[in-house]
Amino acid sequence: MRIQVLHGPNLNLLGTREPDVYGSRDLASIDRMLVDLARELSAAPGEVELVCRQSNHEGALIDWIHEDPAADGIVMNPGGYTHTSVAIRDAIAATEIPTIEVHLSNVHAREPFRRRSLIAPVCVGTIAGLGASSYALGLRAIVEYVRARRNA
Amino acid sequence: MRIQVLHGPNLNLLGTREPDVYGSRDLASIDRMLVDLARELSAAPGEVELVCRQSNHEGALIDWIHEDPAADGIVMNPGGYTHTSVAIRDAIAATEIPTIEVHLSNVHAREPFRRRSLIAPVCVGTIAGLGASSYALGLRAIVEYVRARRNA
Amino acid sequence: MRIQVLHGPNLNLLGTREPDVYGSRDLASIDRMLVDLARELSAAPGEVELVCRQSNHEGALIDWIHEDPAADGIVMNPGGYTHTSVAIRDAIAATEIPTIEVHLSNVHAREPFRRRSLIAPVCVGTIAGLGASSYALGLRAIVEYVRARRNA
Amino acid sequence: MRIQVLHGPNLNLLGTREPDVYGSRDLASIDRMLVDLARELSAAPGEVELVCRQSNHEGALIDWIHEDPAADGIVMNPGGYTHTSVAIRDAIAATEIPTIEVHLSNVHAREPFRRRSLIAPVCVGTIAGLGASSYALGLRAIVEYVRARRNA
Amino acid sequence: MRIQVLHGPNLNLLGTREPDVYGSRDLASIDRMLVDLARELSAAPGEVELVCRQSNHEGALIDWIHEDPAADGIVMNPGGYTHTSVAIRDAIAATEIPTIEVHLSNVHAREPFRRRSLIAPVCVGTIAGLGASSYALGLRAIVEYVRARRNA
Amino acid sequence: MRIQVLHGPNLNLLGTREPDVYGSRDLASIDRMLVDLARELSAAPGEVELVCRQSNHEGALIDWIHEDPAADGIVMNPGGYTHTSVAIRDAIAATEIPTIEVHLSNVHAREPFRRRSLIAPVCVGTIAGLGASSYALGLRAIVEYVRARRNA
Amino acid sequence: MRIQVLHGPNLNLLGTREPDVYGSRDLASIDRMLVDLARELSAAPGEVELVCRQSNHEGALIDWIHEDPAADGIVMNPGGYTHTSVAIRDAIAATEIPTIEVHLSNVHAREPFRRRSLIAPVCVGTIAGLGASSYALGLRAIVEYVRARRNA
Amino acid sequence: MRIQVLHGPNLNLLGTREPDVYGSRDLASIDRMLVDLARELSAAPGEVELVCRQSNHEGALIDWIHEDPAADGIVMNPGGYTHTSVAIRDAIAATEIPTIEVHLSNVHAREPFRRRSLIAPVCVGTIAGLGASSYALGLRAIVEYVRARRNA
Amino acid sequence: MRIQVLHGPNLNLLGTREPDVYGSRDLASIDRMLVDLARELSAAPGEVELVCRQSNHEGALIDWIHEDPAADGIVMNPGGYTHTSVAIRDAIAATEIPTIEVHLSNVHAREPFRRRSLIAPVCVGTIAGLGASSYALGLRAIVEYVRARRNA
Amino acid sequence: MRIQVLHGPNLNLLGTREPDVYGSRDLASIDRMLVDLARELSAAPGEVELVCRQSNHEGALIDWIHEDPAADGIVMNPGGYTHTSVAIRDAIAATEIPTIEVHLSNVHAREPFRRRSLIAPVCVGTIAGLGASSYALGLRAIVEYVRARRNA
Amino acid sequence: MRIQVLHGPNLNLLGTREPDVYGSRDLASIDRMLVDLARELSAAPGEVELVCRQSNHEGALIDWIHEDPAADGIVMNPGGYTHTSVAIRDAIAATEIPTIEVHLSNVHAREPFRRRSLIAPVCVGTIAGLGASSYALGLRAIVEYVRARRNA
Amino acid sequence: MRIQVLHGPNLNLLGTREPDVYGSRDLASIDRMLVDLARELSAAPGEVELVCRQSNHEGALIDWIHEDPAADGIVMNPGGYTHTSVAIRDAIAATEIPTIEVHLSNVHAREPFRRRSLIAPVCVGTIAGLGASSYALGLRAIVEYVRARRNA
Repeated sequence: MRIQVLHGPNLNLLGTREPDVYGSRDLASIDRMLVDLARELSAAPGEVELVCRQSNHEGALIDWIHEDPAADGIVMNPGGYTHTSVAIRDAIAATEIPTIEVHLSNVHAREPFRRRSLIAPVCVGTIAGLGASSYALGLRAIVEYVRARRNA
Repeated sequence: MRIQVLHGPNLNLLGTREPDVYGSRDLASIDRMLVDLARELSAAPGEVELVCRQSNHEGALIDWIHEDPAADGIVMNPGGYTHTSVAIRDAIAATEIPTIEVHLSNVHAREPFRRRSLIAPVCVGTIAGLGASSYALGLRAIVEYVRARRNA
Repeated sequence: MRIQVLHGPNLNLLGTREPDVYGSRDLASIDRMLVDLARELSAAPGEVELVCRQSNHEGALIDWIHEDPAADGIVMNPGGYTHTSVAIRDAIAATEIPTIEVHLSNVHAREPFRRRSLIAPVCVGTIAGLGASSYALGLRAIVEYVRARRNA
Repeated sequence: MRIQVLHGPNLNLLGTREPDVYGSRDLASIDRMLVDLARELSAAPGEVELVCRQSNHEGALIDWIHEDPAADGIVMNPGGYTHTSVAIRDAIAATEIPTIEVHLSNVHAREPFRRRSLIAPVCVGTIAGLGASSYALGLRAIVEYVRARRNA
Repeated sequence: MRIQVLHGPNLNLLGTREPDVYGSRDLASIDRMLVDLARELSAAPGEVELVCRQSNHEGALIDWIHEDPAADGIVMNPGGYTHTSVAIRDAIAATEIPTIEVHLSNVHAREPFRRRSLIAPVCVGTIAGLGASSYALGLRAIVEYVRARRNA
Repeated sequence: MRIQVLHGPNLNLLGTREPDVYGSRDLASIDRMLVDLARELSAAPGEVELVCRQSNHEGALIDWIHEDPAADGIVMNPGGYTHTSVAIRDAIAATEIPTIEVHLSNVHAREPFRRRSLIAPVCVGTIAGLGASSYALGLRAIVEYVRARRNA
Repeated sequence: MRIQVLHGPNLNLLGTREPDVYGSRDLASIDRMLVDLARELSAAPGEVELVCRQSNHEGALIDWIHEDPAADGIVMNPGGYTHTSVAIRDAIAATEIPTIEVHLSNVHAREPFRRRSLIAPVCVGTIAGLGASSYALGLRAIVEYVRARRNA
Repeated sequence: MRIQVLHGPNLNLLGTREPDVYGSRDLASIDRMLVDLARELSAAPGEVELVCRQSNHEGALIDWIHEDPAADGIVMNPGGYTHTSVAIRDAIAATEIPTIEVHLSNVHAREPFRRRSLIAPVCVGTIAGLGASSYALGLRAIVEYVRARRNA
Repeated sequence: MRIQVLHGPNLNLLGTREPDVYGSRDLASIDRMLVDLARELSAAPGEVELVCRQSNHEGALIDWIHEDPAADGIVMNPGGYTHTSVAIRDAIAATEIPTIEVHLSNVHAREPFRRRSLIAPVCVGTIAGLGASSYALGLRAIVEYVRARRNA
Repeated sequence: MRIQVLHGPNLNLLGTREPDVYGSRDLASIDRMLVDLARELSAAPGEVELVCRQSNHEGALIDWIHEDPAADGIVMNPGGYTHTSVAIRDAIAATEIPTIEVHLSNVHAREPFRRRSLIAPVCVGTIAGLGASSYALGLRAIVEYVRARRNA
Repeated sequence: MRIQVLHGPNLNLLGTREPDVYGSRDLASIDRMLVDLARELSAAPGEVELVCRQSNHEGALIDWIHEDPAADGIVMNPGGYTHTSVAIRDAIAATEIPTIEVHLSNVHAREPFRRRSLIAPVCVGTIAGLGASSYALGLRAIVEYVRARRNA
Repeated sequence: MRIQVLHGPNLNLLGTREPDVYGSRDLASIDRMLVDLARELSAAPGEVELVCRQSNHEGALIDWIHEDPAADGIVMNPGGYTHTSVAIRDAIAATEIPTIEVHLSNVHAREPFRRRSLIAPVCVGTIAGLGASSYALGLRAIVEYVRARRNA
């Protein structure tokens, strides 16, 4: 199965800034951890393939969602676009690729405008507040979801 | 007269996804239909020239609006940016190019956040809910508007 | 096909008042223009029949919607009732006659309370801001819609 | 005792349209059922007299409320005017005729704007969601209310 | 000068119901008082002509506003339509007849929904809370306004 | 058929307190009246069985709804939990037992927060404002509903 | 009878600034007009006594309301404090002096925050939009009110 | 480490009702799955101890949170109390036991009132939409969190 | 006189948790302090009797309010139920036992949802922000209130 | 310790107006009662010194707060300024003098706008609804607070 | 040119309180700095004259704005009145003196109610967050503005 | 010190469009003016270095903020993104580069949605309404801020 991992705006700064909020791990390290986990979760070698990408551009994130319409799943941290992007929401809804929304921080404990996600209602599920583990759990969730769907 | 036809985010997916909502016609086919209609509406050969473009990037749509400040009109489907883009609104207001906002689906019958258009208040008019015909009617409307203006 | 054209409150004043906002054409002239267009759009003589009526009474508009439940379509400018009439909305929903909501002015560029249409969510589509052309485009839209439906 | 049964807008369509929502019984049949029930509820022949009327006009409903200021009670389904008519509310409050508001469908389970009744606060009580039985229960309620009041 | 006095819904009940709220004077008596005052205010016999009418129908009130587009002024108590009628607002705005909105009771001291008038923003002024005197003061105001305008 | 009658918080106080608001009948008397009515409504002896219970505990009300998942219907006065309990709403929705929400007083004529029912949208219907009769009518309604359902 | 005329903030500027909005009459001229009118309205010489004062200080306006608790009435233009002063509202409510709120301009046709008056709910009535005549009508209203009250 | 698994109202119904929404697994089966996973996650036998409990009573859930103030973590599905319970929120905040909020369904894709969690802001993180896997991922998350904390 | 002291959810944790917010005194110590104060305030031995109880269950708090309907007063800290319990509000309103709402912390300086008390409008008064002294002052207040009432 | 007692607008009217709402005690009597209580609460003669002042001017209240920046505490009834004065709030926050907000009436049981206090969030605590006793309890509270602070 | 510098409520406390928020410079020092800057900005000696004043009284600030209607500009820090004073707004609008609103702190980063300025919409511009420099930049801005206007 | 000057969407149009709103100066001219001012403000040659850039792409603006994380300050006119971009806000917050938000027009005097800045709360300060001078003052402010910070 092919899974896209999409990191939204400002996530390229991970590890170098505000480590008390976002942890000291940088994005490359998170991507490596996810690749390792994909390997671990694969029933057969290469079963779970990952493509990990980051952009600060809303349009680029949409382009990538469109790029592989036959992808099996997406793990996405939409960052600040979570709260403002109808266009990303529409991209997920239109391609119908199962998506897990993940956040490093607990968005519900921050500014009120972070409590509303425009993306979540078109996702399979959401995971927030667990730092880099949000991604790892998101990957576990999507792999399990894709398998369950195939078996259904 | 030169008319820009601008397709916003996710409209490149037309025809391949959710045909029950958006119809089975793809974007190229809509553009061809519009070019044909432009020819039909032209009083003299080449009177109505069309430039049709699509982007998922808010900034690209703004760049295109700026690109030809002497254009006579715009037919635009801002997609998801309809509800979130002050910047596109400002681009239309600043260039003062007469613009018709069009939507394939009836945005008023969908989620509440789709009822508010940031773009509509700076447009000449809006057409929604008529599938590919929304574009065709939008082209008729802008051509008529430009002619009426020239005669005024 | 039988199409009702329903003009809501104050549209009888057209042409005599506020020509800068609503144009200098009176209602009879718009109705004649629509009858001509109906003829033009008819594949065979009399294919598209129009009944055009105006009332300032919400109840009369509802009575007319009920009157011909087998009508093929409605082009309606609900005027001020657009924003306040649940009863007209229910009439359209109950009879299930395909309806296009039209407005002469761009309601989205006026007072905030004009941005909400109670009628639009039960219509096929909406057209606003194009003066008398809103009606003409509305007629084109409903004719095309009825044909498409019959062919479906 | 004289009881008015007032049916608001679109209720004349009952039985012919949307039977899955509103049932297959038409309005005349409901009125007959109510007349039968009135007879059954009468302690003496003719004790409970009914006048049943329907209008799509807000003003006509108000005229009828005024018409018989000595009426003992009203059973009213204000239809779409439930949510928009201060004038009907004022008519009930001004005449002080005890009124039961009834609805065929469960208005609380539909669009948010149907949750607010401008009429209910000046009524004795409300009954909703039980189809034609809403009327029958409303008639029972008003008869019982009028008797209790006379005995008080 | 010709002045219309328009009484909205439920004002026909005046004097017979809720005298503690609305006073014990009936509508005919108020109209007579206004006719006397018109005579008193007339610089020459018949200078100020009144037409006084009441309806419970929103549409009838609009019809009357349209009926005499050359009227010099309107004194209107829109009753419950004050808070719900965009159509009456549009009628006043479209005919541009100077209008004074009057209310018998102090609408600001009642239910919250009575605090918003859709009519007031298109009127010359508003008078509320003074019982039958609201009408008398409204008549004085409109006569003075019309004279000032003629002299301007 | 087995019908649960569930009385929510503070209804145990009935008859001893605020008789002008809630009537002078105590809860036991209402339950006896309902048992009598159940007998009267039974086509055959014991057709309509009632279980009547009261609790001030939200959790106890939920436990009782769960207790008999094969019950045919519920008549429930959720009292103050009407406006605050998502958990009771979920219990009704999950068990899918047809439920009638009843209220002694006219909740729409009281504080604004009483106008919103979290329970009503998952009920078959609602009855309010008729004192002890609200229960009686609720019982009639549910019995009729269950019979209609069986015959469907 | 003793009537206070209280002018709130910025009314001292009248006549010198924004004459198109507020008229070209200065405050002294308005006060003289009111004194003349008081004389004219007096059944006997000196029956209607006026005290006219202006302040930009919320506290001074309150002090003046308190100063003569046996005054028969107040005609007050609270200016900008209309929308923000709970303290002036409380002063009127506490002294129970009948008060007419007046405004030169039509506050309902201006910024949204001007539509809410904190003062109006504790006044007898309100008059707005009629320039200096608002005061004159306000004086007529309060004199009539005081007389009616004495006769009651 | 000792982890409490707390199931809120209506979760005892799992597996028997609405399997399309909540899955066909019953609560006992989920608890067994969690116990197995706890064993699997334990570095040493018995490292991760679970206590799993369900209640429909808000107070009981609070009692259990208090019961073991030295617990290392909580995985809680507060069900309907998610949106209404300040008291549960305060219990978590007061005991400072790290808590993961889990939901079977994607609460963001349901009724608007389900979008607001009163509990989430005092939790470490939230997981929603993944059926029984939400619990499993929640257990993984809390175990990892407790270990990271001990090592910090 | 008999006074109930009711402690709502989480108050059993007092003294052991978050001492910087709620003080280091535990609940038993507060109850002892109140018993001492009751003795001190008693004009005659035993004049002021206290019953002090705590529960995390909304229903239990309601049961206790009902339990002694002839109690002279209640001092209640509703904790988190302050902001969510219509049922407790109704219990106080129904029994008409004079109640003082007390809070240890200054609820107005915390999260916005803590600013609204559903309980306060049916209480005699409220005291907040003074730690354990809020209870002591509440006891003084209710004792004084009961005496004043008896003397009235 | 030096304590300021500040009475806001309209409190000078106490005892002469609306005794059923505010009691029959005038302000001088309340001040004397507070001076007596200050003496009673003093551990040593003159320990608790009071300065009691009233003004209807927001600015004067601020001036007084500034006047004695080394004061130990303030007991303030901000009256109508409670709900509208950011400036008084800022004065308390800037001088950091511990302040108790008191109200004679139960502000939570009155108009909705009285539920919001701009002052309370910067105070130590609030006391409302207990008539003149609100002041007495406020004085007790501030004295106790100042002592606790000195001992801390 | 004559420029007024107006300091609103609590600014007299500058330098002595909360230096971390507002800086350690007192108001006299800021005024001296502004006088020096006025001299520096003057093209000719005395070109830019300053009058600097502070008051805690809303009315005094209005009096000062009125006092010199021929002043060329105002630099005003309205303090807490920024968010609550329609009267100051009206004073600026009525006198039409160009005004720059300045704030020491970044009001947008504080409590939500500080985000709305009633004053800003009638000002030329606003400067916030730069401590004493906000005043200096405000003075530069107004001097430049007055010169540009004279040259226009 | 290195300062970035970032111009958001549509600012490339400056000078060619709507000169009455935005002035007749084009962007290049503003940049030159800023470079001159930077030279003037430099204590030593080259002390203040500027990089000036414009983009219509939200993502490009974020990329540039990230590009030079050691920059000393940013002067940014976010244009339409001011009101909609959480992502730009997060970029500024994450890099912690001191930022001054500037606007050519007075955003507070325009459409309501322009009153809310998502960017301002993470900036040092804001300057609006002063045309090209907003930038010049912004540059002065940031230079002064950086110096003060270095000296602190």
